[in-house]
Amino acid sequence: MEVRKVLLNEDEMPRQWYNILADIKMNPPLGPDGKPIKPEDLAPVFPMNLIEQEVSSERWIDIPEDVLNVLSIWRPAPLVRAISLEKALNTPARIYFKNEGLSPPGSHKPNTAVPQAYYNKVFGIKRLTTETGAGQWGSALSFACCQYGIECKIYMVRISFDQKPYRKSLMSVWGGNCVASPSTETKAGRDILEKDPDTPGSLGIAISEAIEEAVADESGQTRYSLGSVLNHVMLHQTIIGLEAKKQMEKIGEYPDIVIGCAGGGSNFAGIAYPYIYDKINGKEVAIYPVEPTACPTLTQAQFAYDHGDSAKYTPLLPMHSLGHTFVPAPIHAGGLRYHGMAPTVSQLAAEGLIESKAVNQVAAYDAGILMARTEGIVPAPETNHALACVVDEAKKAKEEGKEKVILFCFSGHGLIDLAAYDRYFAGELKDYVLTQDEKRRFETCLEDHPRPQMLKSC
Amino acid sequence: MEVRKVLLNEDEMPRQWYNILADIKMNPPLGPDGKPIKPEDLAPVFPMNLIEQEVSSERWIDIPEDVLNVLSIWRPAPLVRAISLEKALNTPARIYFKNEGLSPPGSHKPNTAVPQAYYNKVFGIKRLTTETGAGQWGSALSFACCQYGIECKIYMVRISFDQKPYRKSLMSVWGGNCVASPSTETKAGRDILEKDPDTPGSLGIAISEAIEEAVADESGQTRYSLGSVLNHVMLHQTIIGLEAKKQMEKIGEYPDIVIGCAGGGSNFAGIAYPYIYDKINGKEVAIYPVEPTACPTLTQAQFAYDHGDSAKYTPLLPMHSLGHTFVPAPIHAGGLRYHGMAPTVSQLAAEGLIESKAVNQVAAYDAGILMARTEGIVPAPETNHALACVVDEAKKAKEEGKEKVILFCFSGHGLIDLAAYDRYFAGELKDYVLTQDEKRRFETCLEDHPRPQMLKSC
Repeated sequence: MEVRKVLLNEDEMPRQWYNILADIKMNPPLGPDGKPIKPEDLAPVFPMNLIEQEVSSERWIDIPEDVLNVLSIWRPAPLVRAISLEKALNTPARIYFKNEGLSPPGSHKPNTAVPQAYYNKVFGIKRLTTETGAGQWGSALSFACCQYGIECKIYMVRISFDQKPYRKSLMSVWGGNCVASPSTETKAGRDILEKDPDTPGSLGIAISEAIEEAVADESGQTRYSLGSVLNHVMLHQTIIGLEAKKQMEKIGEYPDIVIGCAGGGSNFAGIAYPYIYDKINGKEVAIYPVEPTACPTLTQAQFAYDHGDSAKYTPLLPMHSLGHTFVPAPIHAGGLRYHGMAPTVSQLAAEGLIESKAVNQVAAYDAGILMARTEGIVPAPETNHALACVVDEAKKAKEEGKEKVILFCFSGHGLIDLAAYDRYFAGELKDYVLTQDEKRRFETCLEDHPRPQMLKSC
Repeated sequence: MEVRKVLLNEDEMPRQWYNILADIKMNPPLGPDGKPIKPEDLAPVFPMNLIEQEVSSERWIDIPEDVLNVLSIWRPAPLVRAISLEKALNTPARIYFKNEGLSPPGSHKPNTAVPQAYYNKVFGIKRLTTETGAGQWGSALSFACCQYGIECKIYMVRISFDQKPYRKSLMSVWGGNCVASPSTETKAGRDILEKDPDTPGSLGIAISEAIEEAVADESGQTRYSLGSVLNHVMLHQTIIGLEAKKQMEKIGEYPDIVIGCAGGGSNFAGIAYPYIYDKINGKEVAIYPVEPTACPTLTQAQFAYDHGDSAKYTPLLPMHSLGHTFVPAPIHAGGLRYHGMAPTVSQLAAEGLIESKAVNQVAAYDAGILMARTEGIVPAPETNHALACVVDEAKKAKEEGKEKVILFCFSGHGLIDLAAYDRYFAGELKDYVLTQDEKRRFETCLEDHPRPQMLKSC
């Protein structure tokens, strides 16, 4: 019997997160006046203990005991050798994945939802607002808020709200209150609906709504929570890669290639940053973020200063961006439909420490079906994008006759996204690439935005 | 940090199943002539290697290496201490559960689907037919058939087919072909539709359809597969309890009470039979199967000889039965909507080795929500029935001030059953109890059936 899974016991869970800000140089976020923002400028939006994490340059940050307690509901996550997938591909590559689909909401998202709810609770916050794309983040934050007794309000991108009714049900089970975005509950939402009543919505719009509601609470007991993009979110997700390193060490393996799908960047950062640390310190390892061709932030957009939301409530962040007005095509991987990319991921791409890939929707589902029919587990639409790249690399290893070791993040299961698989089988899934018109539009949108400096960390 | 999970490595997986037929006396199944059937009578329906298991009285039966390989995709399943649930109930009881929701289809069902597909494959079978209630079994068999390269055709009880469209999608992902039952594809289905075109269907009807199709294949390459009731199914599920015993031993615990929900009996048998073995050998342990009040096979029906299906294709089995014509109320726990009960479970009930409980639907969901909001994971509707009993027992332990150890089987997650939770929150879920008319009807149905002997095993 070949061993598939490398397990860790609860007492082997990492006790510290890895903070990449200790090892790379970053352009600062800019305020409306064009000057670097100060931590206190963010205070109406986030609690101060999380803001401190956002700007910290400590390399290792302790994970609070109360956070570990909740993470232990499903963590450590198993590292799995995809033996059956390898056989089906007849590849000399050894393929490993971290199964992040075993968390109660079914994805990697609670890795940061839990600490965010915890730090807000400790800071005295009673209520969190947020946005969600595919619904993975919204359900993760509902779950986390339920664990700490905090209220949770979620603005869900309309197209996903309509495509994935079970996500809303799941949020309700944990006591979360989910509404479709754009909604009539905020000025940001009403403005968009007036211009385009049939808009499928976007993460950028939903973020504006959630921030607006948080800031509007005069009691000061409401804050906003973001499931990706920000430094502290990437920080919390590094538990994925830190566990993976321990697990691979146990079996004497080290990856040649590390792969994660990338929307806002958090799942990618989670698996990749601990390996970036190694790479900066001289290890040879290829690291690939994989995005959809429908929303090719890293592969086609400029590295520019842009807002994280469509209503320009957020500071200007130094990131690859398709423009804060960009509304991506309605692909099923709702979690990858974001106009921007985490500033740290963007910086790593600019420095050439990671090599970005884009795959189209149908190829992603081809790979997802292959995964389900070999390894048994059904991947989320987002995860399928990573899988398409894994399959490509495994085939390349076969062509080259090389025993490559591939590690990827299985970011979540697709059990609540099965309608998309129905459309795949019905031949109704489409591939999307950016039109010339869309390209012109985002270039125009960013025209008068400042440009980040071309920093070099190492 | 309190440890929640007791893990086993793959090399600690049980290598043998426990066969309760070695330890209890059973009435034989009877053929149409009223005489005990012979193994070869079952040959058109099942492959001979599974029939041999069905009638074996060996206490320990080896699990084939190829079966262990596939089970290792998700097994061993963690034993979890429900610390947060205990705290919410403020009980001195320590509550443990086996999390069977981590399998790819999300329930305990693949524990037998995998060996059944394997033995059929080894016997040269190319195609399996089956029925499914809630869809858990149909998706489990699709998954298992996909692993061994066998075709899979599933008749799904209409009410669940309509309530749970994602279950059908999931079967498609693994290549299974699912149709609503009663269908027009079989004589059994057409006969029912003629009498009652609007019938919600039942497991009894779906079984008839699946058997009819299997037997009709003249090439001899199709067989039928059943997800519960039969001896070999109970056998395969004992891996749950055998793992639990190893895990509890590791932490020096032994249960005072073992609880599992019971429809056909397989999940209950899985957690309970290894403890029945202990009980027969002098250990003190209370063992509770929990069924819905809408389908109270053990708590209200007679112990009689009855058919497993509505068209009377199966032999007469000695079991608690509401009558093979019984169509249970449309509760959401589709997996518990079966008129009969496994003969071995029925025999154990008749002998007083287990103590049957029935709970109503709303109380079951109350307990399910409590579980989701404390332990984080969302239970399947079937699992909620076990949970209602767990909550009752934990409250009783509190009243009595006793440190009871409760072990239950978390038979599956509810992520594909979220529509039922929506109905719960909307106040639309109903409780059902048998009407006088229903009682009279099943008594009449069984009137001229032979009665099992009152055997005593120990």
